Amino acid sequence: MHIQLLMTGSELMRGTTTDTNSVRIADALATLGLAIQRKVTIGDDLALLVRELQAISREADVLIVNGGLGPTSDDLTADALAQAAGDTLAENADALAHLQQWCGERKIALNAANRKQAMLPSTAFLVPNPVGSAVGFGLRLNNCLVLCTPGVPRELEGILADSIVPQLAREFAGCEQQIILRLHLFGIGESQAQDMIDKAIPAWPDGVVLGFRAGMPTVEVKLLVRKSAAAAAQPLFAQLKTILADYIVAEGEQNLQAALLDLLAAQGKTLACAESCTGGLISSMLTEIPGSSRAFTAGFITYSNAMKSGMLGVSEQTLADHGAVSEPVVREMVCGALARSEADIAVAVSGVAGPDGGTADKPVGTVWLAWGTSAHIHARRFQLGGPRKRCQQLTAAIALDLVRRTALGDDQEPPYFARWAV
Amino acid sequence: MHIQLLMTGSELMRGTTTDTNSVRIADALATLGLAIQRKVTIGDDLALLVRELQAISREADVLIVNGGLGPTSDDLTADALAQAAGDTLAENADALAHLQQWCGERKIALNAANRKQAMLPSTAFLVPNPVGSAVGFGLRLNNCLVLCTPGVPRELEGILADSIVPQLAREFAGCEQQIILRLHLFGIGESQAQDMIDKAIPAWPDGVVLGFRAGMPTVEVKLLVRKSAAAAAQPLFAQLKTILADYIVAEGEQNLQAALLDLLAAQGKTLACAESCTGGLISSMLTEIPGSSRAFTAGFITYSNAMKSGMLGVSEQTLADHGAVSEPVVREMVCGALARSEADIAVAVSGVAGPDGGTADKPVGTVWLAWGTSAHIHARRFQLGGPRKRCQQLTAAIALDLVRRTALGDDQEPPYFARWAV
Repeated sequence: MHIQLLMTGSELMRGTTTDTNSVRIADALATLGLAIQRKVTIGDDLALLVRELQAISREADVLIVNGGLGPTSDDLTADALAQAAGDTLAENADALAHLQQWCGERKIALNAANRKQAMLPSTAFLVPNPVGSAVGFGLRLNNCLVLCTPGVPRELEGILADSIVPQLAREFAGCEQQIILRLHLFGIGESQAQDMIDKAIPAWPDGVVLGFRAGMPTVEVKLLVRKSAAAAAQPLFAQLKTILADYIVAEGEQNLQAALLDLLAAQGKTLACAESCTGGLISSMLTEIPGSSRAFTAGFITYSNAMKSGMLGVSEQTLADHGAVSEPVVREMVCGALARSEADIAVAVSGVAGPDGGTADKPVGTVWLAWGTSAHIHARRFQLGGPRKRCQQLTAAIALDLVRRTALGDDQEPPYFARWAV
Repeated sequence: MHIQLLMTGSELMRGTTTDTNSVRIADALATLGLAIQRKVTIGDDLALLVRELQAISREADVLIVNGGLGPTSDDLTADALAQAAGDTLAENADALAHLQQWCGERKIALNAANRKQAMLPSTAFLVPNPVGSAVGFGLRLNNCLVLCTPGVPRELEGILADSIVPQLAREFAGCEQQIILRLHLFGIGESQAQDMIDKAIPAWPDGVVLGFRAGMPTVEVKLLVRKSAAAAAQPLFAQLKTILADYIVAEGEQNLQAALLDLLAAQGKTLACAESCTGGLISSMLTEIPGSSRAFTAGFITYSNAMKSGMLGVSEQTLADHGAVSEPVVREMVCGALARSEADIAVAVSGVAGPDGGTADKPVGTVWLAWGTSAHIHARRFQLGGPRKRCQQLTAAIALDLVRRTALGDDQEPPYFARWAV
């Protein structure tokens, strides 16, 4: 099936607004195993809209239009679609009922601007919007199913899940709901992961598609699986987990820190962080997760030497002898964090995130990490690249992964030490 | 001038990758006063690429192609452009020299995959890439200037600034470099800011365009000014600053926290943060800025009650009597942060970020903030909406803005207290 998107809105043509809606649409269609062939993006211009609607409807089976459904004068989708179809605008009873209900629930009067949203091409049908006031609608143009969706992300997500995906599933017998099996990797690049998988699993059965999504700092590997292929996919997913075992930090909808918090909570263990160059990033990644208080107790952001001594008890002599970015200092930071938080595991970071502060001995990107329990503390020096923020993100991810490995009792050196540890 | 973009890459068609490059291109073109009329996005498919190159080059004056310049088999831009132009691929001497230099600087051998990147349409000219190995190039097709740019954001930004913008400025006499005057607002929405400005400045002179960019949690207001209109724009920009004075937290390329750090450093003052529900976010926002150690000394992430006592000296009796989310506790947190960090100013946060943990008395979104110096400490309760992450972001921004106002000696109640304080 040939599917195209028409993304509308002058804000999408400027250097201000990033189009995140087309990704939402692609993600929803992927659950039906459907792919988008082409996207066209234009501003709020009636003539351009009519031209694109005509051109795309002549070659696509389905056209999803996004944006331009609001009540203001630059919301042109209904008008453009009517013109493209040689149709006229008329007040749609279903649309009016939707608007009346929406206003009624909020105890506000239906005004003229709202009422404009009920003016649809006379041959249009309603595409119910479970979330907001915008009226989703569709019609057939040049034998193409044109579906018009709201630009507000929350409303788009509601209409995709509740209306568009079920309608496409009904209309196109060939499509079948898909499930997605996900793994999150750290310390490996997309192409290296692909190589490892290709060697072990050179071909995939019908209905199972391998995909990647490079994030920062993790890489997501996913199997998009047709429901009919679910049984065949399970052993392959298990094989994938064996192949990538050294790199897997989370599974499914979780990320590195959410999986770590679950692991710690299951073990009844708690974690404290002592951060210098990451400046609170590790703590904030953990506390972004709901319920993080189950396992995270304290963060010591000791940005100055005085604070390393005052908050964590790092000796002034050690700081003077070795400098803040050194093995003895991060070891004392971990000891201090363990002692002062009564956490079971602690991790400490001190480094030169840049862009300034590098020296010949300790260039920008030099990071010392220490991690462990009162029974045993490890420390390691890393040399990381990239600008300040990337260096901080990478350090935070390494720190969280090393805590994860400690909690698992895994004493093997992680494979990424070959790349980043010195 | 009619400008179109052709964004290429199969990842852009999936529900995985958001296109941020087209915004980068639009932003760079805006500095020349140039707007993009239409964007087409397609996957890595040679036939589709050739079709779009031919169609777009027939109607546009300039076509900027993004992506597909790498060394792998799905990098098809050079091949597609050669086919569209009825041209053949040949090793381009300038491109080869660029690749040899790039490899030489990294002391790596030029391999066959790199060498493929020097194979360009025989009529192509090089568009120098100051940052990476990808070879930017261009040619004229159907009287349209086609410029091919790399997909890696950092390389795209380099090539836009160093090559594309100067070339377009040279080629199109009508275009004139623009300057952008920016203000960053907090505590006001885009439409409210627009209303205030419209009332005071109903019309703008030729060559001055007002724009907005809604961020989270700040809103950017900008004047896009043609160089010839710079003198006329300055008094208007000053007027804009007067109108929005209550909301301005930063100017130009700075953000809220960078401007705050500069202000504190200029005053020789230091800041400490005591965070519970924001869990390190305030500290990490500050330390994301290079040189933040000039003014930021310490962060106390006291996620548990025991840590509020242990790290900050909050009395156990106060915690027992009032609960962690209370005025006495945030006041004691600020006192502890001031005493234990020797910072001049401190801010403390304790709240219910959700989704769990709310009660009838203290529903999700309840946040207590305390801020000030040893001479005077303020405290206030807020009721914030939205999901956990938004609540944390909003709390962090309020905290930073209150510190900013304290450093400025501004004792007025901020206008957004009407919206969020209780």
